[in-house]
Amino acid sequence: MSKSAGRGKAATGLVVLGEARGRAPGRVRLVGAGPGDPELLTLKALKALQAAQVVVHDGLVPDEILALAPADARRISVAKRKSRHSYAQSEINRMLVAFALEGLEVVRLKGGDPFIFGRGGEELEACRAAGVECEAIPGVTAALAAGASAGAPLTHRGAAQAVTFVTGHAADGQVPDLDWPSLARANHTVAIYMGLTTAGLIAERLMAAGRDGATPSLIVVDASRPHERRVASTLAGLAAAAQGLEGPALLLVGEAMALAQVDAGAYGGYEGAAMEAKA
Amino acid sequence: MSKSAGRGKAATGLVVLGEARGRAPGRVRLVGAGPGDPELLTLKALKALQAAQVVVHDGLVPDEILALAPADARRISVAKRKSRHSYAQSEINRMLVAFALEGLEVVRLKGGDPFIFGRGGEELEACRAAGVECEAIPGVTAALAAGASAGAPLTHRGAAQAVTFVTGHAADGQVPDLDWPSLARANHTVAIYMGLTTAGLIAERLMAAGRDGATPSLIVVDASRPHERRVASTLAGLAAAAQGLEGPALLLVGEAMALAQVDAGAYGGYEGAAMEAKA
Repeated sequence: MSKSAGRGKAATGLVVLGEARGRAPGRVRLVGAGPGDPELLTLKALKALQAAQVVVHDGLVPDEILALAPADARRISVAKRKSRHSYAQSEINRMLVAFALEGLEVVRLKGGDPFIFGRGGEELEACRAAGVECEAIPGVTAALAAGASAGAPLTHRGAAQAVTFVTGHAADGQVPDLDWPSLARANHTVAIYMGLTTAGLIAERLMAAGRDGATPSLIVVDASRPHERRVASTLAGLAAAAQGLEGPALLLVGEAMALAQVDAGAYGGYEGAAMEAKA
Repeated sequence: MSKSAGRGKAATGLVVLGEARGRAPGRVRLVGAGPGDPELLTLKALKALQAAQVVVHDGLVPDEILALAPADARRISVAKRKSRHSYAQSEINRMLVAFALEGLEVVRLKGGDPFIFGRGGEELEACRAAGVECEAIPGVTAALAAGASAGAPLTHRGAAQAVTFVTGHAADGQVPDLDWPSLARANHTVAIYMGLTTAGLIAERLMAAGRDGATPSLIVVDASRPHERRVASTLAGLAAAAQGLEGPALLLVGEAMALAQVDAGAYGGYEGAAMEAKA
């Protein structure tokens, strides 16, 4: 059990005192910090952060954003770590509830949007079950930032009539059991979160389900950050394109990705086909 | 031909003069204004707006946001209108290019995100074809705001492993030719933009393709605005729930919508099934 979780439990002990004294109830706000660029924070998220007494944050949230909370606000990282204790989701849920019951203004700060692969729904349910007020503040999810940086529209007339967000990383570290035939349909952008290490397997599954190996694909690492990197490939070349890349990444697969402006890689002459598809 | 488009053409005539005099080149920024609440604007969008000399905007962008541009910035509405001239996309493209070539700082301000059903890709292509610098600034798209307001996660462990954004309104005003079998798969949230008038037909198509008529569904009108309205129903009841509603709306269909907090309507006892699905 980590120190912070221990404090969370101790905090629960204080609740009764707080309530007995008529202390104002605390609350939890699930705040989307956006994709990483501090300027892509919303004004509402900024205000919430400035009013926070406790900030419970992911590893994806950069220091410049954490610095926007008051100097005396408590900051708790619940980042996934390979070598140290990682917080189970249930521990995070308990911690949020405990701080709020202590009367504190709690910000649960998440990369992107709290309800797109952020497990915000589970935290919301935990708050509701405990009778704790919980509000969500939406944020710019990474796929939108990746498309904007690359100049590649996620939906586009004649080339992408829909966009689907999936995760490329199941709880067991393997490729999730997704609905591959649906994702393999043409004229459709698939945005895959956390798919860098499984890029090759994802490409295989999509092609096995019928998606054209020549489909333009894009890897965006650290979207919106100064060290952002964009690599283009075909779907068939996605595994090779992912080689050597590290960090939070988006895979974007779809005909409209032919419009992307990139640092490296190429679509292998697919552009003509994409233009034809749009005509 | 409208006055503004006429001026756009006159502006093109000035380009050569501007270039001959070494005037700094203008540029176009495709800016996501977010879902409507001015506080859901990003800091980057706010800065772009404050630096704009021309703001070309949709009807969905509220006055409070337009007021953030400098008082002397030219504001041009290209809103769809029933009774008056509506701008064709090609006219908007030409206007953006013409202003930028005149050396102006142009903001193309769109509700939500510029690359989610905003036709931003077409404007980007027009700028590139004309050699005009074009940058996209992402925004909080309406589906994220609708989920956050309702407390309904668009992805949720055990209930929504993916989310797909589609439009419910084709260019001809009819229901678009979407991939209904894919959208009908369970354990998946479908966010339908501009689907209020076609809600009944969309529900029929989804059910015909196999989606359970008991699937929790949510209509959010004017997401994030003071007069936001949220109505719950089952998929089978969507047409009835949409009756009498007006304004920019999101339809959200999926098991995770059982978590939504609403103003009116009910899921008809589906909650138990959704909870079961999550277990």
